[in-house]
Amino acid sequence: MLPRKGAGFELDVRLDGDTRPFLWLGLCEMRIMDDRRWPWLVLVPQRPGIEEVHDLTPLDQAMLTFETNLAAEALKRATGCLKINTGALGNVVRQLHVHVVARSEGDFNWPGPVWGQGPREPWKATDFHRFADRLRAEF
Amino acid sequence: MLPRKGAGFELDVRLDGDTRPFLWLGLCEMRIMDDRRWPWLVLVPQRPGIEEVHDLTPLDQAMLTFETNLAAEALKRATGCLKINTGALGNVVRQLHVHVVARSEGDFNWPGPVWGQGPREPWKATDFHRFADRLRAEF
Repeated sequence: MLPRKGAGFELDVRLDGDTRPFLWLGLCEMRIMDDRRWPWLVLVPQRPGIEEVHDLTPLDQAMLTFETNLAAEALKRATGCLKINTGALGNVVRQLHVHVVARSEGDFNWPGPVWGQGPREPWKATDFHRFADRLRAEF
Repeated sequence: MLPRKGAGFELDVRLDGDTRPFLWLGLCEMRIMDDRRWPWLVLVPQRPGIEEVHDLTPLDQAMLTFETNLAAEALKRATGCLKINTGALGNVVRQLHVHVVARSEGDFNWPGPVWGQGPREPWKATDFHRFADRLRAEF
């Protein structure tokens, strides 16, 4: 069993299917989107029943900001990307989750968004482990 | 002249062209996207030379979180929307700006993203003023 913090918190099954486990922080479960088109982290606050950032307690909001920026800085260092894109949409998967994506000139759909760009292209195992190790070294 | 807080801060000319002035908060200039397809706020921290959230000072990061959530809650109350979408992309306009968008089932491109969906559809003057007044009452 993987660790699951927060009484009653269960990761949404669609998020679980689209992403791979990576790190557990004080508030968030941090996962890597299984889409090799972009280096892409997903942060899920381990609180049950939360759909909007403003539904979190003020302390949890501050924690989420801190952990999102931690993720953004590590991802930027690990990839040397030009720009970080962050977003919390949740129109399909309602459980609150924050996207942190590394963008570079000429990547897929640059300078457009990563959302709504067709099916994921799953990582190959060796490439994934290399990326995850490189990223882990930045935390 | 409109107020411009923060020494050296100048609103990006493209942001200025795409949005209309609405409110000035402690950190951010809050503007309304001139696109009637969605109720859409844009928050611009009045700090010069900032491109990423993690480039702000820790205090400014906390302020941005607070003001973003203030905007999200007011927009949700004013519109009765189903979901708030937030994002900070900045692939085209590099000056840090945060999108806060009200989404409802069946709106344009639901449940896809609002970004990358073709040209804006500017508000009609009377509709815009009605929306802005309704929203202002929530702050």
